[in-house]
Amino acid sequence: MLKVLFSARPKAWDEYHAPLEAAFAAANLDVDLSRHHPPGEIDYIIFAPNGPVTDFAPYTRTKAVLSLWAGVETVVDNPTLTQPLCRLVDTSLTQGMVEWVTGHVLRHHLGMDAHIHGQDGIWRDQVSPPLATKRPVTILGIGALGAACGQALRDLGFPVTGWSRSAKDVPGLRCLHGDDGLREALTGAQIVILLLPQTPQTAEILNAERLALLAKGAFVINPGRGPLIDDAALLQSLNCGQIAHATLDVFRIEPLPADHPFWAHPQVTVTPHIAATTRAETAAQIIVDNIRRGETGHPFLNVVDRGLGY
Amino acid sequence: MLKVLFSARPKAWDEYHAPLEAAFAAANLDVDLSRHHPPGEIDYIIFAPNGPVTDFAPYTRTKAVLSLWAGVETVVDNPTLTQPLCRLVDTSLTQGMVEWVTGHVLRHHLGMDAHIHGQDGIWRDQVSPPLATKRPVTILGIGALGAACGQALRDLGFPVTGWSRSAKDVPGLRCLHGDDGLREALTGAQIVILLLPQTPQTAEILNAERLALLAKGAFVINPGRGPLIDDAALLQSLNCGQIAHATLDVFRIEPLPADHPFWAHPQVTVTPHIAATTRAETAAQIIVDNIRRGETGHPFLNVVDRGLGY
Repeated sequence: MLKVLFSARPKAWDEYHAPLEAAFAAANLDVDLSRHHPPGEIDYIIFAPNGPVTDFAPYTRTKAVLSLWAGVETVVDNPTLTQPLCRLVDTSLTQGMVEWVTGHVLRHHLGMDAHIHGQDGIWRDQVSPPLATKRPVTILGIGALGAACGQALRDLGFPVTGWSRSAKDVPGLRCLHGDDGLREALTGAQIVILLLPQTPQTAEILNAERLALLAKGAFVINPGRGPLIDDAALLQSLNCGQIAHATLDVFRIEPLPADHPFWAHPQVTVTPHIAATTRAETAAQIIVDNIRRGETGHPFLNVVDRGLGY
Repeated sequence: MLKVLFSARPKAWDEYHAPLEAAFAAANLDVDLSRHHPPGEIDYIIFAPNGPVTDFAPYTRTKAVLSLWAGVETVVDNPTLTQPLCRLVDTSLTQGMVEWVTGHVLRHHLGMDAHIHGQDGIWRDQVSPPLATKRPVTILGIGALGAACGQALRDLGFPVTGWSRSAKDVPGLRCLHGDDGLREALTGAQIVILLLPQTPQTAEILNAERLALLAKGAFVINPGRGPLIDDAALLQSLNCGQIAHATLDVFRIEPLPADHPFWAHPQVTVTPHIAATTRAETAAQIIVDNIRRGETGHPFLNVVDRGLGY
């Protein structure tokens, strides 16, 4: 029987315990999964950086450390970690992001909120939205997430422009790059989606000047990173009607403080960093599959290169 | 110069006037478009059954009557109508329906309403929805509209079952038919979409017994026809938690009376028969294209067969 230590916050245990047991059973692995095994007896550690294990030295027979997180920057340089470290590469993150982005784009495109809020007996059939083919969407950032979202929106009929700092080509999207391309990508866009990484170059990339390039009454959707937006400029654009609504999933401080003006603003929707979350069920399967590989003589997947840091 | 009469309600004139003029210009047609031409001078009539023209006899030089409506049942038997009658066949209706259905499916799938209503400073990140791949959707009615909606949802990852009275095959969908198939299609479905035609056989097809087959906490979405649902049974299923929410676009009486319990029910969203509307811009292009065909010696498209009635 394999001994597997689960080292993460208690909340994660509640969430992962059953899916892990189910995945072990489905893989025909005989496993004793616990949060309390003695270090010297442990075959595998399922690990989150905010869990109890910080010193890996006592885990002398552990064959691999399997991260519950995609990002391993807080553990990769731990000098006690000599065991193979595998990061979580979960394609369901992309799928979840596509669902969240497509849903909120359609919500704003269709003007759903007027009906969701307006259950007052008034039959509001005066205004039809244009078809998606007449609603230009621009995505800043066309890495794996941005490209997948862009293609899903393209499939629904939206004309999609994708922008990246350096030249990229995503089939079905009008792809622009660089500073001139950014100006062109934003000009006249009716919906803008932010999916850039957080770097010094992307800080407050959506500022007052660039918000003014969008079509009057545009929608801003940010499932990327909080600092991509100049918050004060966004609030001003909302107040003057240049931006009709902002749906924001990420913030400089999370949870967003209860007294932040975004919460009270009628044209802002705050969602609690849920656009792309690791689902316990899919993550459990990926982790158990890696343990199965180790037990059947296959190399582990997604082993972190300590030199590269990922 | 062609003389074209616009015979519909004043509201339609406001909506169609500019798109028609733009489409005539784009087609290089020199047209005098008006609501007040003398009958004997008119080349074409753009027509809605609720407009002023009811006697077509004085329109002696009129080459065709171009309906603004898809349904021509109220005019096809008019004995004064000897001119060719063309009905409106607008593929943008299907596109609009796909957008509305996909948007409301994603809204319920993602649990958006909790965030749209919950802008109160509380960071609600406890519950992640499953991925679309774990959310079975069933569509009752897989004609042109149902099939297109089903395929769009399938492309987003939802497992989609389509049901029709007689056997049909729609690529990418699990297709069932007949009474046994209906039971199987509804059992365990988490989202049900009604896109059946209104016939004696489909009246109240979604009744108490069939609502009970759905997964606990399922969502009902009706952009089809009001009488497809047993309204009292639906209200009871909402009250007991079997159905989590119903989004309804069509009703037995429209506009839905302000005192109808659907308006006040917190788990019902009423939308005002907007899921698939004729857009002036696309309809204007289709009508102008037919006039262009007539003027360049091509046969009219979608000429009504008086014998068949459509």
